Amino acid sequence: MLGLIQDRPLLISSQIEYAGLNHGDVEIVSRSIEGPIHRTNYRNVNLRAKKLAQALGRLGVDFGDRVGTLAWNGYRHLEIYFGVSGMGSVCHTINPRLFPEQIVYIANHAEDKVIFTDLTFIPLLEAIQDQLTETQCFVIMTDEAHMPETSLKNVHCYETLLEAEDGAYVWPDFDEKTASSLCYTSGTTGNPKGVLYAHRSTVLHSYCVCANDGLGVCNSDSILPVVPMFHANAWGIPYAAAMSGAKMVMPGAQMDGKSVYELMEQEGVTLSAGVPTVWLMLLGYVKENGLKFSTMRRTVIGGSAAPRSMIETFINDYGVNVVHAWGMTETSPIGTTGNLLKKHEDLPESEKIDIRLKQGRTVYGVELKIVDDEDNEMPRDGVAFGRLLVRGPWITSGYFKSEGGDVVDANGWFDTGDVGTLDKDGYMQITDRSKDVIKSGGEWISSIDVENEAIGCAGIVEAAVIAIPHPKWDERPLVIAIKEEGHPVTREDVLAHLKNTLAKWQLPDDVVFVDELPHTATGKLLKTKLREQFKDYKLPSA
Amino acid sequence: MLGLIQDRPLLISSQIEYAGLNHGDVEIVSRSIEGPIHRTNYRNVNLRAKKLAQALGRLGVDFGDRVGTLAWNGYRHLEIYFGVSGMGSVCHTINPRLFPEQIVYIANHAEDKVIFTDLTFIPLLEAIQDQLTETQCFVIMTDEAHMPETSLKNVHCYETLLEAEDGAYVWPDFDEKTASSLCYTSGTTGNPKGVLYAHRSTVLHSYCVCANDGLGVCNSDSILPVVPMFHANAWGIPYAAAMSGAKMVMPGAQMDGKSVYELMEQEGVTLSAGVPTVWLMLLGYVKENGLKFSTMRRTVIGGSAAPRSMIETFINDYGVNVVHAWGMTETSPIGTTGNLLKKHEDLPESEKIDIRLKQGRTVYGVELKIVDDEDNEMPRDGVAFGRLLVRGPWITSGYFKSEGGDVVDANGWFDTGDVGTLDKDGYMQITDRSKDVIKSGGEWISSIDVENEAIGCAGIVEAAVIAIPHPKWDERPLVIAIKEEGHPVTREDVLAHLKNTLAKWQLPDDVVFVDELPHTATGKLLKTKLREQFKDYKLPSA
Repeated sequence: MLGLIQDRPLLISSQIEYAGLNHGDVEIVSRSIEGPIHRTNYRNVNLRAKKLAQALGRLGVDFGDRVGTLAWNGYRHLEIYFGVSGMGSVCHTINPRLFPEQIVYIANHAEDKVIFTDLTFIPLLEAIQDQLTETQCFVIMTDEAHMPETSLKNVHCYETLLEAEDGAYVWPDFDEKTASSLCYTSGTTGNPKGVLYAHRSTVLHSYCVCANDGLGVCNSDSILPVVPMFHANAWGIPYAAAMSGAKMVMPGAQMDGKSVYELMEQEGVTLSAGVPTVWLMLLGYVKENGLKFSTMRRTVIGGSAAPRSMIETFINDYGVNVVHAWGMTETSPIGTTGNLLKKHEDLPESEKIDIRLKQGRTVYGVELKIVDDEDNEMPRDGVAFGRLLVRGPWITSGYFKSEGGDVVDANGWFDTGDVGTLDKDGYMQITDRSKDVIKSGGEWISSIDVENEAIGCAGIVEAAVIAIPHPKWDERPLVIAIKEEGHPVTREDVLAHLKNTLAKWQLPDDVVFVDELPHTATGKLLKTKLREQFKDYKLPSA
Repeated sequence: MLGLIQDRPLLISSQIEYAGLNHGDVEIVSRSIEGPIHRTNYRNVNLRAKKLAQALGRLGVDFGDRVGTLAWNGYRHLEIYFGVSGMGSVCHTINPRLFPEQIVYIANHAEDKVIFTDLTFIPLLEAIQDQLTETQCFVIMTDEAHMPETSLKNVHCYETLLEAEDGAYVWPDFDEKTASSLCYTSGTTGNPKGVLYAHRSTVLHSYCVCANDGLGVCNSDSILPVVPMFHANAWGIPYAAAMSGAKMVMPGAQMDGKSVYELMEQEGVTLSAGVPTVWLMLLGYVKENGLKFSTMRRTVIGGSAAPRSMIETFINDYGVNVVHAWGMTETSPIGTTGNLLKKHEDLPESEKIDIRLKQGRTVYGVELKIVDDEDNEMPRDGVAFGRLLVRGPWITSGYFKSEGGDVVDANGWFDTGDVGTLDKDGYMQITDRSKDVIKSGGEWISSIDVENEAIGCAGIVEAAVIAIPHPKWDERPLVIAIKEEGHPVTREDVLAHLKNTLAKWQLPDDVVFVDELPHTATGKLLKTKLREQFKDYKLPSA
């Protein structure tokens, strides 16, 4: 028997329509690419998103067609978010930092019919336009006065397109499971894979972002998302801000410490969100200049793990609360958020930081579990670690065009590729990537744990730990380290140091020194390359 | 094209399962019917709700069957909420304050297969059991030690049923639109009508309750819902508390000021919810005894409009924030919540109270509009008033077994029966019931506005205003008033007083004095009776 409740679909357009009607005056402030600070509000964003939908219809964009963007955080990008999804087309945010050949690959794979671009990325598009086989036209996100000379063919001016429309457009109703946006992940191996979000998943995820125990986005907030809108829907903030009526402050192309700080102070920013690298720049600028944050109350740190010192600096030196969050493009992305519980209120500050250092608590809507190699669920005791699986109504069920094949198991669980612990309060801590963990005689050894300990050894600048095949134990750990220049540290010194903190079975079988370690473009250790490099290495114990 | 997102249903069981796994230690405190304070936690509530599901299966309760409750707010009622809905059956909360013949009507209409009862309501059930044609057995919500002598046939003891089960039960997955619970509205006319909630609507509504701009229920809260769990799912709090991990504190049968206050202080209650009458008792007790609230931060007032003095007392005298909320059984119930906006922060306190006196802002997920008699939408200017229509994924689409016929229009809007204003910030104010509004020459006159002004006239104790047919204007207002004993106030005095504040066309055509006015059981003016009484009244102007 079904309930007798109105069958209203959860659609992204309802968020901006609600914002236009109920907090139409709330400001959207952007540092424009053209130069000055630009001010608009939700009423105008809703109206202009509708004009955009009309204009795209006139350009031949149909329901379900993909529309690409190469853009910074700004009001026009926000209008595209709502306009494209609202009309039932798919907003495909492209990361402009990818290599040109990757951009060509994903724009063609997505079959982007139209590509919107900020002024910044015109040269990039000019260079690759002949390879974009699916794209029929380009829209430059500026007005007539700022339209540049360009070799781009079939090019339109954003403001001119909007001026031709009257905005008398009613957001259409359709199935809430309809695709709304598309974002590619750039794995370390294989082709980029597209995650295809739905209206339903986006709205549900927005509720999580607005929940007090999620990110708590609310009407009294002024939010500056430094995380670029080409990443995983910028962690849901554009949608959550519209539905709650929070003021939005967007940094455009300028994400250096000074620019971000000034915008925060000028616009009364209360909440911010970004990756650790950005906060390093910001904190550096604030410290150098003896400044403080006069309105910022909390910041969300995600993308990669925040170091303890960063969390301590925000909280202890600046009174800014830190919410450590974990997610992936495949998880929309919020999976966990690092809020403290009531029972933690009276803990000493350092223990609160210990908790904040974890990746956060499982949010309602997301199920997490850890399993061993035979898919047996492991205890939630904060100690046992296993492959982290995730399930929920905003978690991917498979990549666009079936790239990568089946990615969920028979019970619907998606393997994150991470290895971690869960505790009885729902806090999760990632201990490794599952491909990096060392499987020794049925026990797992976290490569990251061993690396962290190795770096603590005097004379060691950087260390990577990888698994080396072993005839008896299957795999055993090898430390590959860089010495501090001129320091006499030896293999035996490192092993002696590790004996202080690691159990016997976790101790590496060998230590080798190298001059440099391979990294990805974003600074992460490239262990695939190390494994290749050491594939014929024989451990002394073997 | 559909998004590629896991197809996970939104089910009520996911809330208690999440609570058991991620904040299993958080307490549920109840003043038990048997006497002492009882303490349990979410882990146990989840386990016992599973045992309950097993026990009900053994009693022959199937998917979709209705299970009635006659119960106060307490942990067993909470277990029934989750256990019955979680197994796919329908939890039908019966208001024990209804007349016995109404209880018989709705229990039979709902076809309640089993009825759970607190010790309190056994005599009531004994008296009507022979008329309950659909009910196969009764479960008394107590343990063996407290089982009373009873003439009830086919009776079980709650704890004994649970003891027989092992709790090794996996919450089943099913369509999220499946009916989850049932609650009857007692209209002033006709039979009670059942609102049949769904899992999907309940989960979405819970997200609204947890949103910072909804009721902001969160993990650091300790919540005491005084509103009984037999009303409209007690405003969503049992579900929202589980999903956020808030501590629950439940008053059982004792809702007097002293009992509620003591529980608030003992259990560190931060948030409470109830109707104005309950708060009057509480505030009376607190004032008489010179007490204060040491932990309570905010209270939700709903059910009927809170008087200004009550809001002022909470805020000014006790530092307790007030969230005025509006909803109906048909709206799950949250439709509006009276949170202030950022732009209101610097207003003088009295103007903030003015805003808090309105019924609150439209929450995201609910659409409100006001229309005239021809269904034309009226302006959102805070002045124009019209019939209030509502639409959304937790609003009723029709009553159980089609009672009352079609209740939504062609575009899916439900008519609330209220008349009100909306403003550009989404705040709604109810000005009248639509059947009470006076329609005079195409203009609407609010009966409540005229009543409020009439009561301000010296010598008038109470006043009701109803429409009287008029040959020229269709309808004109008549004031029916009670004089203060011995006061010489006249018809002309009242009309002269009203001229000070009402426009000429709003002025009543006549004033008559009576000794008493008819009221409902809850103290509201019974205008249907007045209309009947004055149906042959001729206005002097006619």
